[in-house]
Parts: sequence; structure tokens; C-alpha cells
Amino acid sequence: MIYNFKSDYSEGAHPDIIKALSNTNTEQLEGYGEDKYCLAAADKIRKELDSPGVDVHFVSGGTQANLLCISSFLKPYESVIAAQTAHIEVHEAGAIEFTGHKINKYPGLIGKLTPEQIQFCVDFHYDEHMVVPRLVFISNTTELGTVYRKKELEAIYEVCKKNNLLLYIDGARLGQAMKSYVSDVSLADIAKFADAFYIGGTKNGALIGEAVVITNPDIKPYFRYNMKQKGALLAKGRVVGIQFNELFRNGLYYKLAEHANNMAMNLANGIESAGYKFLAPPESNQIFPIFPNKLIENLSENFGFYIWSKHSKKTSVARLVCSWATKEDAIKAFLKSI
Amino acid sequence: MIYNFKSDYSEGAHPDIIKALSNTNTEQLEGYGEDKYCLAAADKIRKELDSPGVDVHFVSGGTQANLLCISSFLKPYESVIAAQTAHIEVHEAGAIEFTGHKINKYPGLIGKLTPEQIQFCVDFHYDEHMVVPRLVFISNTTELGTVYRKKELEAIYEVCKKNNLLLYIDGARLGQAMKSYVSDVSLADIAKFADAFYIGGTKNGALIGEAVVITNPDIKPYFRYNMKQKGALLAKGRVVGIQFNELFRNGLYYKLAEHANNMAMNLANGIESAGYKFLAPPESNQIFPIFPNKLIENLSENFGFYIWSKHSKKTSVARLVCSWATKEDAIKAFLKSI
Amino acid sequence: MIYNFKSDYSEGAHPDIIKALSNTNTEQLEGYGEDKYCLAAADKIRKELDSPGVDVHFVSGGTQANLLCISSFLKPYESVIAAQTAHIEVHEAGAIEFTGHKINKYPGLIGKLTPEQIQFCVDFHYDEHMVVPRLVFISNTTELGTVYRKKELEAIYEVCKKNNLLLYIDGARLGQAMKSYVSDVSLADIAKFADAFYIGGTKNGALIGEAVVITNPDIKPYFRYNMKQKGALLAKGRVVGIQFNELFRNGLYYKLAEHANNMAMNLANGIESAGYKFLAPPESNQIFPIFPNKLIENLSENFGFYIWSKHSKKTSVARLVCSWATKEDAIKAFLKSI
Amino acid sequence: MIYNFKSDYSEGAHPDIIKALSNTNTEQLEGYGEDKYCLAAADKIRKELDSPGVDVHFVSGGTQANLLCISSFLKPYESVIAAQTAHIEVHEAGAIEFTGHKINKYPGLIGKLTPEQIQFCVDFHYDEHMVVPRLVFISNTTELGTVYRKKELEAIYEVCKKNNLLLYIDGARLGQAMKSYVSDVSLADIAKFADAFYIGGTKNGALIGEAVVITNPDIKPYFRYNMKQKGALLAKGRVVGIQFNELFRNGLYYKLAEHANNMAMNLANGIESAGYKFLAPPESNQIFPIFPNKLIENLSENFGFYIWSKHSKKTSVARLVCSWATKEDAIKAFLKSI
Repeated sequence: MIYNFKSDYSEGAHPDIIKALSNTNTEQLEGYGEDKYCLAAADKIRKELDSPGVDVHFVSGGTQANLLCISSFLKPYESVIAAQTAHIEVHEAGAIEFTGHKINKYPGLIGKLTPEQIQFCVDFHYDEHMVVPRLVFISNTTELGTVYRKKELEAIYEVCKKNNLLLYIDGARLGQAMKSYVSDVSLADIAKFADAFYIGGTKNGALIGEAVVITNPDIKPYFRYNMKQKGALLAKGRVVGIQFNELFRNGLYYKLAEHANNMAMNLANGIESAGYKFLAPPESNQIFPIFPNKLIENLSENFGFYIWSKHSKKTSVARLVCSWATKEDAIKAFLKSI
Repeated sequence: MIYNFKSDYSEGAHPDIIKALSNTNTEQLEGYGEDKYCLAAADKIRKELDSPGVDVHFVSGGTQANLLCISSFLKPYESVIAAQTAHIEVHEAGAIEFTGHKINKYPGLIGKLTPEQIQFCVDFHYDEHMVVPRLVFISNTTELGTVYRKKELEAIYEVCKKNNLLLYIDGARLGQAMKSYVSDVSLADIAKFADAFYIGGTKNGALIGEAVVITNPDIKPYFRYNMKQKGALLAKGRVVGIQFNELFRNGLYYKLAEHANNMAMNLANGIESAGYKFLAPPESNQIFPIFPNKLIENLSENFGFYIWSKHSKKTSVARLVCSWATKEDAIKAFLKSI
Repeated sequence: MIYNFKSDYSEGAHPDIIKALSNTNTEQLEGYGEDKYCLAAADKIRKELDSPGVDVHFVSGGTQANLLCISSFLKPYESVIAAQTAHIEVHEAGAIEFTGHKINKYPGLIGKLTPEQIQFCVDFHYDEHMVVPRLVFISNTTELGTVYRKKELEAIYEVCKKNNLLLYIDGARLGQAMKSYVSDVSLADIAKFADAFYIGGTKNGALIGEAVVITNPDIKPYFRYNMKQKGALLAKGRVVGIQFNELFRNGLYYKLAEHANNMAMNLANGIESAGYKFLAPPESNQIFPIFPNKLIENLSENFGFYIWSKHSKKTSVARLVCSWATKEDAIKAFLKSI
Repeated sequence: MIYNFKSDYSEGAHPDIIKALSNTNTEQLEGYGEDKYCLAAADKIRKELDSPGVDVHFVSGGTQANLLCISSFLKPYESVIAAQTAHIEVHEAGAIEFTGHKINKYPGLIGKLTPEQIQFCVDFHYDEHMVVPRLVFISNTTELGTVYRKKELEAIYEVCKKNNLLLYIDGARLGQAMKSYVSDVSLADIAKFADAFYIGGTKNGALIGEAVVITNPDIKPYFRYNMKQKGALLAKGRVVGIQFNELFRNGLYYKLAEHANNMAMNLANGIESAGYKFLAPPESNQIFPIFPNKLIENLSENFGFYIWSKHSKKTSVARLVCSWATKEDAIKAFLKSI
């Protein structure tokens, strides 16, 4: 095995983070996310978002963040609108439904939900025999590695506000979305457009952890009760706080995302030059080239990656993921093999 | 503040654990708990338990372990029997009930559930208008720092098996229970008596994480699906695996627990010598002295601890907790102050 | 078998109700509780309650009413305060917990919850590791056949409002409570004291059905969505509406309750005269005499009733229930047998 | 208003049913579905199904039957496969999701799920990040009034058994399906093909109630506990038992369904003769003609019916439903108006 492109969580954490965990290790701190590092990290995030009033909570993983937020924000009869490729729809083992809520799914467009689909969903549901759509779930980057443009987010946000819907963004790879070459939005913009979202750490250089941000005051109260109830309130909350404190000191979060994107773009460019197409345009650190099955077989001897889907009789879609730790050499070796 | 006796999760992790995280940091590993460190840690645990066939899963916290196991093991109409001091009953914000299950609580005896209470509960429930008690929840050490003796565990296990009940042990402080001066059981005994339990890391020197052990083959299948659904399947599962690999290399887990217990016993002996009584006999790293309110006020200037409950008009119960990191000096300073 | 005192739902419906169902049978009506009989019945109930603004919904049974209301009114982390004899605590197979909510139970006093217990429960819960008590559940008549006096209800209501708690009354036998010889409250009083309650039909002469009344405007919205979601929105809602339209025409509801109470009081008086005591003072149509086991055995040959509990080695508590249909002769026959 | 074609639950019950309720009214019977009429009705159903070993339970409505069965049969991580037109997917306000289970929906074919879709769903889900499809939900008649042929049911059943899936049939209009002119299956066939299903009463001449039938022994145990927990165990279970006892005495159930179908077929034939097309082939008592909006407007003055969906700019789909009580005159009047 030369390199594993399976995921952006194959390696540990950026060395600065390990160092910070080590340096603070013997300090006695408050539990449950109320220590000074959690507070400092939250402050840094608020500053980054240019939103002094938002609530920030640290949790251990993305599925946890999603199920926690959605179950906290919705009433029993309220539902979620999502693309059919959405992580919550396909890859969370029914986590949202376990908390009692339906997902109204729509085909999406290269991983993106459209304002028209949202409006259609709202119009389709009109009486007490049906659920009440109440929260729009989008992922940025999407599950296909694509990135929402500002005007797309604005349009979605507008249709949400017009219909009294909450907009929630799964930001497992929010850094990568911000640093995509196609991106024209900042984290501060995200805070303007979303009622709540999370800033992913696990997939951008943290050892573990995500930062949930709630901007809408209506859904802030009692969130920590929901955290405790869902097993998301970490006794040593410091573990995540210390990491985010590093990630948002001197722009480390962006640098790591940028590196992951750059590696993936190099990979994508090489693949394109070799004459292959993609399931979705490569815009971030996950790319989805369509390869002949024969080539996939050969590549598998030296590289790790997932087969995303069959494409035709003789071709399949591969998912290649770069991380903050991917080295140029791995890219070169891969491109040499195709 | 001289020292904080609030909890055994005030400090970070034992230095060996930080070192292991650092040393393995750049390795590319499988995600979701299927990496070599998780596998090795599970093997070490199986060896320690003298139970080659048990399943071991790593999760991020105790409430998560409890809600995950209970909701995984029970059918909708089945309930849990627990002491009224049980963590799941009082201090998990309704986590078990959120997963749909009733807790049948009984007064307990210095934190312990008795076989008689279990039998009473089973006998009390007899038709379809009532829940079916199906799982007995005990904590060892208990929430009052007391420790189950072997014959107590045997008696509980026996009444469980007689009544087709599962026995589940919350082992947030299982190491401390094993190393208590009153203890006559080993981890291997625990594996014999319990259908499932967890070995606590967070409160015994880990940065984060607990090891869920399932011994009963009937409740093993599909557990990872439940983990994913409850947000408990960590992408970087390595984070917990690496830690448990350290904890169960050369007996570190026991050494840390023993130290915490020793510090607490020194503290307890000093407090007793000073003429104070305890809510429950001091047997592990949590002790519950009854102090005059005036003394508590004075102590609070230099020491951190929780008031557990009011005891009389002029006295209250304090909770003092020692950890793997507590230093002799802190004990001495505290004893000097009473 | 001379007569069955097992329950007040052993017979069908009062003949007027059967007649009304028959007379309206061929009319084509709106579905889902929006027909003219449901509307008329709701209006009659509003008038009876002297509360023109309340919402009235018809459902098929008491457990359904309880789980529906509680799950509709509470947020995930909120809990219910109830007496340990409460129907929802003991005899609904975990229905409330299945909807995700904890019940904080207290011993009660002859079936009644006290304001002190409510206040204690509120004070006991103070941070995010614990549930937030939010709804007080009482049954009137209680599960022991006792009846809340006005000053008791006022005191409970007061402690509820002081602590931002909702007061919900299970009125499976609300008519019998109103017509108890000890009662000093009217249905209109109930509407003043409770945020929501239900008026029981099944146990007071209806074939099937209960009327849920919501007085607090904050918890009214979207209730029909919750009804549909829990399977409580009957396609032929008319079935319940027509019955309540009869029950609240010319005071039938009260007459039936009064008859049931009178029969039970005759029974109680005779039992008392014969020298037997009661578990709780006989105040409504359910009475709980303490009989020698030998007598119970003899009585069982000719009469149906439940053994409520063991009382001593040689005595047990029987539950005897009279209904709108119980005949004087049955009482006489029973009294002759003791 | 000449006639209301909105539903088959606009009228009360068949007169024989009202009579039976009246005749048995004063009898004292066991509660909770254990009376002699429930037992007799269950026996008649077993005979009709030629399946002496099946379990039969009576509940008050279809949504209740669906949520009760599905939540009773599935483990937390298991999901339901259904057509996107399925009642549980669209018109039960998220009832299934509230019990914790995901619905995997597929487009369907005139309301029917295909074996290929079922196999696709099974193949698509393969690891613990995804739900485990475990129960296939079909409605017969479908929500579009179409009827499954024997070979269709056989093919679905076969793919279910091959993949360890349960087959559950929503039989709100099962009588109408059996008596459709296209049907080649009997109730006994249904019992052979389905692991569980319900025989609809409410929409075929009963006042209220459905009969749940469980044929698969693995999913029978403890069903009554689930009934109680979901508020589905009626105190006066007799109410439904007496009705089904009538429906299955001398074939009343079939006669009523046949009449409803015949009326609808007359209507469909007349509409077809007048040159209109249908959204789905008319096969049972619900038909879906495509009418010009202008005509719909005119018809609405004299007839009640729902607009099912828009079809084109100038046309819409109407839903016309006939019942056991629909008279020939209503059909004639309607056909005269188009």
C-alpha cells in the first residue's frame, strides 16, 4: 500500500493539536465543556464568524451533531428536507428517524438541494395527515464534494425564511468548502445564512470533535440538556475545546483545508489530463473519478479508496479523498499509475 | 485554589497515553474502530477478562455507553431495574427514557441494588398493562463510592438468571472498584457475572473513552448498527483504541485506579481521625464526608468539591474525588484544613 | 356469577348513546372529527366548562389521551411528576417513556400527589445533567378512588404556576370525581385549574372515547398533527362525537356518574357496617375493602373483582367497581355474602 | 349536496352491526379484547383465513395498526421498504418515524411496489452506516385503488423470504381488494403471503376498528404489551370484536366490499364512456378520473370529493370513493353531471 485515499480521517491530528493536548495535560480544568479552553475556542469561533452572540458547543462526531441538533430543534410532527445523497438520509443508520423525525428527500443536483425542491416540499404538505417540513439540511461540502456558491446559499436561505424553515448545515468539511477554489463565501457568511451548523474538526486535522454553532436565538435554550440526554456532553470537554482553540489560532483550520483541497485538485487535474471524467465536478478534497473497472483493480493493489457506485458495465465511480496530511508524493504515485 | 477534588476527570490523560497518541499520530489507519490499535486493545481486554469470545466496542462517554447498550438490548415494552441513586436515573437527563424505556427504581442500600428488590420488581409486573423488567443496571463502584462484593454480585446475577434478566454494569469507575481494599473480584469475574458492562476510561486516566464489553451472545449482533445510529461510532476510532491499548499494557489501568483509591483512603482516614462521619463507607476514590456547613465554607476557599446533599440543619455531605493524578500534597493540605 | 365488580367498562353504553349512534347512522358526515356531532359535542363541553375558548379533541382511550397529550406538550428533556400509583407510572406499559419522557414519581397520599412533593421535585432538578420537570400528572378520581378537594387542586395549581409547570388531569373517571359526595368542584373549576385534561367516556357510559380538553393556549397548536402521528385521529370521528353529544345533553354524564357512585357508596356502607376497613376512604365508584383471604375466596364464586394487593398474611385488598349500569340487586347480593 | 364521494367512511356502520352492538349492550364482558365476541370474531377470521394458528388483535384505526405492527416487529436500526405513495410515507404525519424507524421509499408503479425495487433496496444497504431493510409494506388495495394480482404477491413474497424480510399488508380496504374484478386471491392467500396484515373495518362498514392478523410466529410474542404501550388496547375491546363478529358472519364483509366496488365500477364505466381517462386503472372502490378543472368546479356544487393532484394546466385528478352505503342514484346523478 502506497497511500490510502479512503478518507480524511485516516491519520491522527495535526502536530500542533497533539502538542496542545500534551502541554495542557496536567492542568485541572472544569468538566463538561466549561473549561477555559472550550471558552477560548468558542470565543475564537465567534470572532471568526463575526457573530458575538452565537452559541458554540463541542461534540465528538458528525452524526452526533446532526441527530442532536435536529432532535433538539424540531417538534415531534416536524420533518427535515434533504437531498437523497444527504449523509443523514443514507449513511447514519437511521439516526434522525430514531429521534422521531421524518426526512423528506429529494433527488438533489450533484449533491445539492435546490430552492425549488424545498418550496415543492413545503407546498406538498398542507394538513394534519402529513408532517410539517421545518428544517432544511444541506452539507457543505456536499457528500459529492461539491460546494455551494453564495447565491445558492442565499436562495436557499430566502426560501427557508419565506416558509418559516430552519436552515442547518452539516459542516463535516466546512473548512474545505470555504477554501474551495469555487467558493465565494466565508464562515461569517455561513453564520448569516444558517440557523445552526457545525464546523467539522475530525475531517480537518482534529483528533476528534466538531463545533456546533447556533445562531438563531429561538433554538438556543436548553441545548445542553439535549446534549446530555443524547450522550454528547463530554466529561473532559477540554479534549475538543483545546483542539478547536488550536484550529482557530492563526488560521490553522483554513491552512489544513486548503492543503487537502490542493492535493485533491492536483489529483483531479492529473486524472482529467489522463482522459477520465467525474461523477461531479471536483471542487474540494473529495473527488469522484469514473474509472474502468480494470484500472480500479490495478490501482487497488497500491492505493486505498472506496468504490462509490457502478457507473456502467465496465466502469465505476471511485471516491478519492485527500487530507491535511496527504503528501505530494502520494499524488504523483497515483497519477503515475493511471 | 490549592486543589480541585470535584472529579476524577479534571486532569487530562496519563502521560503514557498522550505519548501513544503522539507516536501513532501519522500512521494511516482504518476508520470506525477497525484499526489495529482498536483490535489490539480489544484483544488485551479479552485476555484480561479471560474471555476470548466477548465483543469489545469503544465509545466516547459513559452516558453514551449506557443509552446505547440499553436501547440496543431491550424491546420497546421492556424496562430497566435500577437503584434510585443510579446515574441513569438521576444524572443522564432522561437519556434512557428518550430511547423509549422505563426505569423501575428502588431505594437501594448505600448505592447498591439488592436481589430482593430485583425479585420484587419482577413479581410486581405480571401482565400487559405493565412493562416487562428485563435488564438490571448496577454501577460498580456505585454512585456513592461503594463497591459490590463477590457474593453480592453472585446473588444479583443469580436472581437475574432465574428471572431471565440481563445484568449490565456501569463501570465508569470499574478499575477503582477492582482495586478497592474491600474488593474480592477481578475483571474476569465481572465478565462472568455481567451480560454486558463497560470499562471506564475517562475517569481513570484516559483522555476520552470507554470500552463496552458484551459477553452474552444473544445481545451481540448488530451492535455496531446501534452505535452508528446513536452517534457513537467514532470516525477516528483509533483515538479510544490507542488509549485502551496503553491502559491495558502492563497493568496501567490498575495502577491508576489504585493510586486514586489510595489518595482517597488517606483522605478518608484523616477525615475520620478528625471525627467526621460519612454518608457511605469510603471504599474507593469517591468519598462522602459529612461536614459542618461552616467548615465547608472555609474549605471552599482553597479546595474544589461538590455539595452532594444537605444532611441536617448545620451539616452537609461533601463529595471528594481523587484521581490517578492527585498528589499526596493535596491530601495533606486538605487534612490540615479540617 | 351473580355480578362482575371488576370494572366500570364491563357493560356497553348507556341506551341513549346506542340510540344516537343508530339514529345518525346513515348520515354522511365529515371524517376525522370535523363532523357536526363532534362540533356540537365540543360546544356543549365548552359550555359546561364555562370556557368558550378551550380546544376539545376526541380520542379512543385513556392511555392514548395521556401519551398523546404528554408527548405533545413536552420537549425531549422535560419530565412528568406523578404519584407512584399513577396510571401512567404503573399501568400503561411504559407508554410515556416510549414517547421519550421520564416520569418522576413520588409516594403520594392515598393516591394523591402533594404540592410539597411537586416543589421538592422541582428543587431537586437543577442542571443539565438532570431532566427538567415540566408537567404534573394527577388523576381525578385517583387510582385509589379518592377525590381531590378544591383546596387541594388550588394548592397544586398554585405550585405549578409558581414553577412554570403544566397541570394535566387524567379524567378517566372525572364525572365520578365531580359527583363524589366529598367533591366541591365543578367541571368549570377543573378547566380553571388544569392546563389540559380529559373527560372520560369509556368508564362512564360511553361505548368508547374520551374528550381531551386543552385550556392553555401555549399548548394548543398543532395538536391534531400529534393526534394523527400517534394513531389517535379516528377516520369516523363521529363515533366519539355522537356519544359525547349525548353525554352532555341534559346532564346524562353526571347522572351516570352519580349512579355509579351511589351504588359504590351503598356497597361501602354495607362493608363498613360488616366491620371491614378500606385501603383508602371510599369516595367514588371504586372502593378498596380489606377482606380476609378466606372471604375473598368465597366471594369469588359469585362475584368478579380484582385483588389489588396483599395486605397482611391473612387479608388482601379487593377492588370493587360500580358502573352506570350496576343494579341495586347486585349490591344487596354482595352484602349478603359478607 | 347530492352525494359525498369523499371517502368510504362518511356513513356509520352497516345496520347489522348497529343491531349487534345494541343487542349485546347490557351483557357484562371481559375487558381489553378478551371477551367472548372478540374471541368468536378472531375464530371466524382464522377460519376465513384457513389458518388456525394465527393471532388476531383488534384495534381502533389503520394508522394505529401500522405504527403498532411496525414498531413491534422491528429492531431500532431496521427500516421499512414502501412505495412513495404508501399511506405510512405520505399520510400518517410521520407516525412510523416517531416510533424510530426509517422508511425507504421507491417510486412504485400505479401504487404498487415491485420485487425489483425491494431487491435494489436490500442490495443498496450493506453496512453499519446504513439501516437494515427488514419489512416490506404494501397496501392492498393500494392508495391509488389498484389491486395486487396473485403472481405479484407471490413475487414480492418470494423476494422477501429470499432476503429475510417481513411482508406486511395494510388492508384498510382488503375486502375491496379481494372482491375486485381483477382479483385472483382470497383472504387465505393473503395469510399465506404476509407475515402480518390488517383487515380493515372502518372503511368497509364497521363503525370503528381493524383486525390485525399475525401469521409469523416469530413476531407474535408480547404483541399485547406493545398494544397497551401505544394506547391501542381498548378497555371495551368488545366494541370492535362485536363488529368483526358480524362482518365475518355469513360473508357480510365481502358483500359490503363488493357493493362498494360495483358502485365505483359503474361510476368508472360511465366516466370512461364520457371520454375521460384515469390516473390508475379503476379496480376497486376508489377511482381517480382526470377531469377538466372547469368540470370539477361544476361537479363540486353537488358532489363531495377530493382533488388528488394537478394533472396539467387545465386538468386535475379527482378521487371518487364509493362505500357499502353508496346508492345507485348517486352514481346516476353524478354521471348525468359530466
